[in-house]
Amino acid sequence: MRILVIGAGAMGSIYGARLSLHNDVTLVDTNRELVEHVRRHGITLEEGGVDTTFHPGITADAASAGAVDLVILFTKALYSRAALDGARPVIGEGTCVMTLQNGAGHERLLSQYVPMERVVIGTTEDNGAVLGPGRVHHGGSGVTNIGLAAGDDVLLLERIRSAFSPCGFDVRIHADIRRLVWDKLMTNVSLSALSAILQCDMSFIAADDHAWSLCTGLVDEALMVAEAQGLHFDRDVVLEKVRTTSLSNPDGYTSIMKDIQNGRRTEVDTISGAVVTAAREHSLHVPRHEMVVALIHALEDRGRS
Amino acid sequence: MRILVIGAGAMGSIYGARLSLHNDVTLVDTNRELVEHVRRHGITLEEGGVDTTFHPGITADAASAGAVDLVILFTKALYSRAALDGARPVIGEGTCVMTLQNGAGHERLLSQYVPMERVVIGTTEDNGAVLGPGRVHHGGSGVTNIGLAAGDDVLLLERIRSAFSPCGFDVRIHADIRRLVWDKLMTNVSLSALSAILQCDMSFIAADDHAWSLCTGLVDEALMVAEAQGLHFDRDVVLEKVRTTSLSNPDGYTSIMKDIQNGRRTEVDTISGAVVTAAREHSLHVPRHEMVVALIHALEDRGRS
Repeated sequence: MRILVIGAGAMGSIYGARLSLHNDVTLVDTNRELVEHVRRHGITLEEGGVDTTFHPGITADAASAGAVDLVILFTKALYSRAALDGARPVIGEGTCVMTLQNGAGHERLLSQYVPMERVVIGTTEDNGAVLGPGRVHHGGSGVTNIGLAAGDDVLLLERIRSAFSPCGFDVRIHADIRRLVWDKLMTNVSLSALSAILQCDMSFIAADDHAWSLCTGLVDEALMVAEAQGLHFDRDVVLEKVRTTSLSNPDGYTSIMKDIQNGRRTEVDTISGAVVTAAREHSLHVPRHEMVVALIHALEDRGRS
Repeated sequence: MRILVIGAGAMGSIYGARLSLHNDVTLVDTNRELVEHVRRHGITLEEGGVDTTFHPGITADAASAGAVDLVILFTKALYSRAALDGARPVIGEGTCVMTLQNGAGHERLLSQYVPMERVVIGTTEDNGAVLGPGRVHHGGSGVTNIGLAAGDDVLLLERIRSAFSPCGFDVRIHADIRRLVWDKLMTNVSLSALSAILQCDMSFIAADDHAWSLCTGLVDEALMVAEAQGLHFDRDVVLEKVRTTSLSNPDGYTSIMKDIQNGRRTEVDTISGAVVTAAREHSLHVPRHEMVVALIHALEDRGRS
């Protein structure tokens, strides 16, 4: 399969490197130094104590890759539009665009580039951390959950699975992928969002009464919006999952917390903002999430002022 | 007039010192070192470049003061109950209890010690800063606004004015004192509360679009609760006042912001919490203020953990 992976951060590097084992992969990144480095030395993944070096193609100019079967978006959500604009030349008649980015609602943007029936959304249970130029730690389970934003072209998803499986990704196809995306979103809009505002580690949220009441309030609003979209969740199960994730990460810092700490822009618009957007579509009121989005943007601004 | 001033912080020192010019004043403070210092050296107020030293009585044990005509509460609101419990022995048949503390709703607590008809509430336009033990900077206009929490015993208020006036306080008596208290509250529940959460100086709020949208959201909820209590405000006037206060304090840090920064407990329960309590009494929903209270308490907890 001819694949373009946009964004050579931790996750883009992991997927780009591994997929290159059995596919024609080109990574795209705006960082020209990194592009040059990977071109010469490849990408080294540190997986379970073992280092392996891969040699996917890499470029700073997506157009040079030619038409591809699949575009995978691994930029931060706030750079998605610019990344897809740059990739327009490689998007042909049958190209699929796929995102495993955090948050929800990415299909709105992706469907401006290909029909909704060729938008693949999903989640990944892998995780990664950049250790240096072209050097990435790869953790997690290898499970990649995918589904279509619209339609039921299972063959299309099967083709993607066939391309991914021999490269070490356990791809699972879901008819109700949005449920899975929202399941993951529950933790992000509560635990991650609060850890950014409070500038605390993850475990503080479940351990502190006030933070936990904020957390459950955010989950409740998100559950209401999910329900309106036909996505039913058991409140107790969701809260227990959030609580466990919190308590089991005593020194865990979310990426959105780190973004605020380091004065960077965050992905809040596709995390908490996804709840606000979906709520509006169903004429629901989510004052807590609206407040979270505004607070995090204000904290971003303060960090830059 | 026999007066007990509870709390020898900046404001307690200013009122205690000046009132001692023409009244029998005893200050009470739990800080025994400070009590000893003031007993020996008095309180020096720095006012407009001039230093004046006053010699009010001071004690660590309120009971030793004997029955008084007026108790003035100048502790942080979260220590009000303990302070009033300690002062019970000096509260007699006709004693009035007065508070000029920030926030609103203090009369609920004070009326547990004297009848509501002898609870005096108000605001002060004076301000102060402790410069050292027994040494306080005194700024502001000298205007003290007072009124009764219940009833219309104007003579009682006139007696207080007569005691205060010769000591340099411009006391103004108001029939609608709660309106004035809530007018001041508007700035505290929006500007001050947000500056604590965002850990920013006051001017950031009006200058940043996201912070300003949060600020107007908080003012709108507070206006709704004020209206339900029969206190009408012009929204544009309130917002313009908040905006001006914000922009005219480019390096202004609110006490609640400083409390969070220094890991201290804040007065949020009688500031934003006053809006939440009053909203409940009128079956109104104020999710933004509920969230502010919980966020600030969580930030207090984080600071102590």
